[in-house]
Amino acid sequence: MVTSLEKKPSHEVVIIGGGFGGLYAAKALANTNVNVTLIDKRNFHLFQPLLYQVATGTLSPADISAPLRSVFSKSKNTKVLLGEVGNIDPKARKVMLGDEIVPYDTLIVATGANHSYFGKDSWKELAPGLKTVEDAIEMRRRIFMAFEAAEKESDPEKRRAFMTFVIVGGGPTGVELAGAIAELAYQTLKEDFRNIDTQEAKIVLLQGGDRILPHIAPELSKAATESLKKLGVIVHTKTRVTNVENDSVTFKRDNELTEITSKTILWAAGVEGSSMGRILAERTGVECDKSGRVMVEPDLTVKGYPNIFVIGDLANFSHQTGKPLPGVAPVAKQQGEYVGKLIQLRLKNHTLPEFSYNDVGSLAMIGQNLAVVDLGFLKLTGFLAWVFWLIIHIYFLIEFDTKIVVVIQWAWNYITRNRRSRLITGKEAFLGPQAVNHHSPFQATETK
Amino acid sequence: MVTSLEKKPSHEVVIIGGGFGGLYAAKALANTNVNVTLIDKRNFHLFQPLLYQVATGTLSPADISAPLRSVFSKSKNTKVLLGEVGNIDPKARKVMLGDEIVPYDTLIVATGANHSYFGKDSWKELAPGLKTVEDAIEMRRRIFMAFEAAEKESDPEKRRAFMTFVIVGGGPTGVELAGAIAELAYQTLKEDFRNIDTQEAKIVLLQGGDRILPHIAPELSKAATESLKKLGVIVHTKTRVTNVENDSVTFKRDNELTEITSKTILWAAGVEGSSMGRILAERTGVECDKSGRVMVEPDLTVKGYPNIFVIGDLANFSHQTGKPLPGVAPVAKQQGEYVGKLIQLRLKNHTLPEFSYNDVGSLAMIGQNLAVVDLGFLKLTGFLAWVFWLIIHIYFLIEFDTKIVVVIQWAWNYITRNRRSRLITGKEAFLGPQAVNHHSPFQATETK
Repeated sequence: MVTSLEKKPSHEVVIIGGGFGGLYAAKALANTNVNVTLIDKRNFHLFQPLLYQVATGTLSPADISAPLRSVFSKSKNTKVLLGEVGNIDPKARKVMLGDEIVPYDTLIVATGANHSYFGKDSWKELAPGLKTVEDAIEMRRRIFMAFEAAEKESDPEKRRAFMTFVIVGGGPTGVELAGAIAELAYQTLKEDFRNIDTQEAKIVLLQGGDRILPHIAPELSKAATESLKKLGVIVHTKTRVTNVENDSVTFKRDNELTEITSKTILWAAGVEGSSMGRILAERTGVECDKSGRVMVEPDLTVKGYPNIFVIGDLANFSHQTGKPLPGVAPVAKQQGEYVGKLIQLRLKNHTLPEFSYNDVGSLAMIGQNLAVVDLGFLKLTGFLAWVFWLIIHIYFLIEFDTKIVVVIQWAWNYITRNRRSRLITGKEAFLGPQAVNHHSPFQATETK
Repeated sequence: MVTSLEKKPSHEVVIIGGGFGGLYAAKALANTNVNVTLIDKRNFHLFQPLLYQVATGTLSPADISAPLRSVFSKSKNTKVLLGEVGNIDPKARKVMLGDEIVPYDTLIVATGANHSYFGKDSWKELAPGLKTVEDAIEMRRRIFMAFEAAEKESDPEKRRAFMTFVIVGGGPTGVELAGAIAELAYQTLKEDFRNIDTQEAKIVLLQGGDRILPHIAPELSKAATESLKKLGVIVHTKTRVTNVENDSVTFKRDNELTEITSKTILWAAGVEGSSMGRILAERTGVECDKSGRVMVEPDLTVKGYPNIFVIGDLANFSHQTGKPLPGVAPVAKQQGEYVGKLIQLRLKNHTLPEFSYNDVGSLAMIGQNLAVVDLGFLKLTGFLAWVFWLIIHIYFLIEFDTKIVVVIQWAWNYITRNRRSRLITGKEAFLGPQAVNHHSPFQATETK
């Protein structure tokens, strides 16, 4: 199969998904002698690690987005196609995009993952997650609208419900959200209201495992917990959410059930492979894990299909450590680069050793002067970690979009705790806080 | 009525609307001995003159917005209320906000104006206007989605419809939109597509009167027309739109009907006072002009109600020149400042001479190095006018937000023709361009 590739006049590579995996695969193949078609539902790549800053009013969506067409405008072998892939035909080597059929020689599937609600799909509307720009705008609307509603509410109990924020999931996103909301309530907004004292807001972080940020060293988890507590966040570990209602969340801890009344429940838990995983399994017989991620071969291909690669959050790559690599940007990026390189080498009848993740370390931002950094050989907390986090993200943003001014603005906003991007927009934004008295005021809507 | 004011222990000023008029009235009254309640449907003030740059992908909504609460966080006599006023009771001096009743001693109505579709309400969905952030996001979606749809379309006629943009209205907004879309098609996007040549896009500006930008000197109108033509925009004056369909617009010119097939029709014509004008007319008997604007007294009050002011786009102030002052930001700003000052003087039993607009001049941006500036004593075109326009807007943005970095970013984006804020977002964004083959693909939706 590999040897047949070089005989073709032009080798068609189709990449599904313009996240970190797909983007870096396409970059690795830009201006080479293959034809690349990059398919995405959206016209932009999203720098997801900073999405929580959109949700909490620090950045605008465009600040962390790069139009895919402009990324590849100078790469004439790369075609960007806007659309949603409905099916794949691995035998005929075709991808179905609505009525359109896109043939491929090599396929790279990089469609990522969604939040998992552990089978409780009704929770999704009540406790939205944070994967897309629209999710972030909706989360931002809920957070800021909750303060507005509290300001108008005279009943102290209802007011408390508006002033209580519950974040489910103690991974990086959950921790960063909790820290950012705490800073918002206790610092940014403290002078802004006349009837409420935003310092009375309650921010609760629920984590299933025995510590937050389980992917970093235990002592850093502990430091992160301390930092969150310092900011005013209540952290509950070993906690299993058993129910989510319109204005409450119930969790089990030490065999005890607790119900918190809250109008703003945010979801940052669980991982579920996107639907392309299921389609691939049906069409190729490849195995998926219980989260719907595709079990890939050591070279990131699908078993029996050396011309189909699965990378990023959708891939379960367990060959290196015996457990799946984490669903983080550096993994997706390195896998994309690996596959891009491998495709080129194969055309020259060469190959690469199996994929191996070069762990660059983990880090999480908790708040101003508060972060944790785990580089393995070096562990940082507090101010030093915070500076390190800033530098790393400035570096990534520059690499991502050489517009230095955007980076300066971002760093400036961040350092000055400016949260001017706190627009309440969308259909329900017009209704004012009286809207929150409706039956299901904070239900997920199509408003963006 | 006036003399009774000073006897009250605290004087309640209610301002409806946080646009330029309401904002500057509230600023004039900040930290004085009156109580101010500023009511707006939105939690932010919008710098509307730059909204067209959001619609065409240069700026993000937050770049031209200021959270009202943060503007007044240090002004403890000012309360911001999020909500929509449903009615006014001028006899009882009360404003109805949902179930809530807000009493006032002095009322300032600054709710602005909407686009007028000259009674053809069905056109509104087919040819959206540009007044809100949501409008701008929707317009941006339509513009960028049209190029995406053209890229996928194989039928040359249909493709042409996607590549044709019609802007109705030759005032500043229409001119600025036409210029920005021309720059987008002919410069920014020219390397981005593989199947279409964006240079083949057709941008048509339709103006009812005999020249565009009728509020500035005729020689500048002419210069602006030349600049637009240089950019590639087709300008039709003395043109009356007679019909708008899903994918066509028909107009009459020299008694001849012409139909243009276009998937993207944008509305920048007509002015219609917001609904508060009608409510005021019903409740106070005040006269409105045929555009629904309130005929105000020389001191901007409503006849018979010296404690009710109407300012900004909703006011028809014709005492100075015999015709209404234009609906532009400087008029609203000066009126807001005037009213703020007058209220304070009245409390000391003083008053002010009647309002008089200090015309600071008019300017319009057409494109890179192309603008027109009319200061009366000085008329500029081309590069000099463009630099002047930039400086003036930088000045206003600094005054507006003091976040110098935002201004640098904006100027940088503008000068480098960066249009990274070109996200297609909202419900329909997910569907990809195949969505445009639906029955009414570009209908206005709630997607933001």
